[in-house]
Amino acid sequence: MLRTATHSGPVVTVTFDDGATTRFHAIWLRDNALDPETRAPGNGQRLITIGDIPADTTVGNTRVVGGDLEVTFQPEGKTVIFPAGWLADHAYDRDRPKDAGRTAPGLTTWDSALAPPGADWNAVHADPRAKRGWLAAVAEFGFARLTGGPVEPEALLRVADLFGYVRETNYGRYFEVRTEVNPTNLAYTGLGLQAHTDNPYRDPVPGLQILYCLENSAEGGDSIVVDGFRAAQRLRAENPEGFALLAGHPARFEYSGSDGVCLRSRRPMIELAPDGELVAVRFNNRSSAPFVDIPFDRMEAYYQAYRQFAAIIDDPAMGVAFKLEPGESFIVDNTRVLHARTGYSGAGSRWLQGCYADRDGLLSTLAALELAQPEAAE
Amino acid sequence: MLRTATHSGPVVTVTFDDGATTRFHAIWLRDNALDPETRAPGNGQRLITIGDIPADTTVGNTRVVGGDLEVTFQPEGKTVIFPAGWLADHAYDRDRPKDAGRTAPGLTTWDSALAPPGADWNAVHADPRAKRGWLAAVAEFGFARLTGGPVEPEALLRVADLFGYVRETNYGRYFEVRTEVNPTNLAYTGLGLQAHTDNPYRDPVPGLQILYCLENSAEGGDSIVVDGFRAAQRLRAENPEGFALLAGHPARFEYSGSDGVCLRSRRPMIELAPDGELVAVRFNNRSSAPFVDIPFDRMEAYYQAYRQFAAIIDDPAMGVAFKLEPGESFIVDNTRVLHARTGYSGAGSRWLQGCYADRDGLLSTLAALELAQPEAAE
Repeated sequence: MLRTATHSGPVVTVTFDDGATTRFHAIWLRDNALDPETRAPGNGQRLITIGDIPADTTVGNTRVVGGDLEVTFQPEGKTVIFPAGWLADHAYDRDRPKDAGRTAPGLTTWDSALAPPGADWNAVHADPRAKRGWLAAVAEFGFARLTGGPVEPEALLRVADLFGYVRETNYGRYFEVRTEVNPTNLAYTGLGLQAHTDNPYRDPVPGLQILYCLENSAEGGDSIVVDGFRAAQRLRAENPEGFALLAGHPARFEYSGSDGVCLRSRRPMIELAPDGELVAVRFNNRSSAPFVDIPFDRMEAYYQAYRQFAAIIDDPAMGVAFKLEPGESFIVDNTRVLHARTGYSGAGSRWLQGCYADRDGLLSTLAALELAQPEAAE
Repeated sequence: MLRTATHSGPVVTVTFDDGATTRFHAIWLRDNALDPETRAPGNGQRLITIGDIPADTTVGNTRVVGGDLEVTFQPEGKTVIFPAGWLADHAYDRDRPKDAGRTAPGLTTWDSALAPPGADWNAVHADPRAKRGWLAAVAEFGFARLTGGPVEPEALLRVADLFGYVRETNYGRYFEVRTEVNPTNLAYTGLGLQAHTDNPYRDPVPGLQILYCLENSAEGGDSIVVDGFRAAQRLRAENPEGFALLAGHPARFEYSGSDGVCLRSRRPMIELAPDGELVAVRFNNRSSAPFVDIPFDRMEAYYQAYRQFAAIIDDPAMGVAFKLEPGESFIVDNTRVLHARTGYSGAGSRWLQGCYADRDGLLSTLAALELAQPEAAE
């Protein structure tokens, strides 16, 4: 509920009933008007362009009507209602964090002390709340396990179907992760793999990876996940200049292990939004290409930062380890969480299937579940 | 061919036979060593991590051997050959452009004077050179037409099969672009659409869009494409501060027109790499959400820049227009090139099918064709 609304030139000032005050610009309000001539009823899309709004738009009048804001815009003479709750949700007249390397609201970073979040196969199929909790864990922590699933090839595609769409690549709709004789990728050997994000040579990288276990009787072959955002923040704390170097210069990645495939990218190991929020981490020793975008006189410091970032990632205090049993799987947010595996021996067998999926599909499904179950929101 | 190689502390200096001189650091050379213990023969992936390389790595000896560089690293006592051509290709001891908003090498920006690049359906199926030219046009200009294709539903999927993989979304593997009674998206009406990039509410956005024409006898319904990178550079020239505002603050985009779909993103309209190279443009009046990440005292200037950017995009001097005939299609690089359509009337019919595909698949197929046809490289 609004208590007062006033205007002065192109600025509207409102006071909420709790005494909080905030300001909006006439052009911003006009562009975001919620009336059916501005926004299509139903699909909610904007029907006008910025060019349709007079450049000299200003406020002719403001009133509080039923606790909401009524604004009349000039020269259009158009009157629009803005609900008080909508204004509170979209207020931009505020201090904002400026520290480079902060995480988006709603994310929780973690280290080895985290109990791995997870859910049960049957529950996420039967109970929308269980499904919501599972997807919310991926959004908050960047990974989640799923236990109790069928031990069946292609079951991982049913995991993807729960929230979105498989992203097909040169590796197929899904790929077999087991020892091959002439591997096109070191993932298809028994070697241990340092914690890494997948396919940094792709742009964009796959947003999510699902790894689904069908056999795991070999010695070793444990899974380890590491929060790349926590690692980046630790680097920032230990070596701010090194953090700035990894965030401030593109790295290069490349893969051309199969016929007809030649993937190359030019992206930083630590990606920030223009306002400093952490967007993504890319880290993969196997597919790092020669870095050629760092000035000569910064290269040694860049390598020092890279070495330090790697040491943080390899630090056992950072990783959460678990061994997948047949029928178990996990999802990682490949823009944030690195995954590793310990080496495994020829005794017994290890067979996983992996696929990629889009992160926006998962977040969309989660947001729609949250809208449908508002009472469950924390 | 190298003429000389010397070292001093951790730096190796080489002189090519044309007299050019460049320097490399010991740690960089060691990390990028090409020997089979460092790089897996076959798939080319690196077998060691940065932590496997001694932190005190330095150069014990350098020699020119058969025109190539031989380096012995200490304390490992490891000797590795670096071909002269490889060193020339990966030299980083150079001045690099610093201007924000420059385009990557190999891109050509354009305006309405451009003759739309295109290729013929049969040619790209039969002739690898024609296919290569067609894909190279997408890489260089951000769009290309394809004419002479079959007038058959789902033919667009065969276009995607030529270079990569469809990216399935909530709109399906592909979607119908024609007038609907209760449209979930304004694209499915006869309205004109301002030039836009698709799905900026998705993160990452679809890298490529294919629009394939099956019927187009309606009045209007012309296609227009605009080079978003050229538009960004024009904004930079006309209003450098406005360019910096659009590049320096995240915008917001949102779509929730269908049940169970709630897509939101927080990305700038003009995205730059950390070193200022243009990465992407996002522009869509229909799905822009309220911008809340711009400081209050910059919001008016931000909107002024947004209005100016829109006016540049709408300027007829910027757009290349064509009318698709049945069996014709075009690909747009949705991270760079905006597309528009003029409104069309109920007389006659207009039916397009659209789908998304990944840009990295196209660029990989192109790079592999270039490696296979080196003599054709310009």
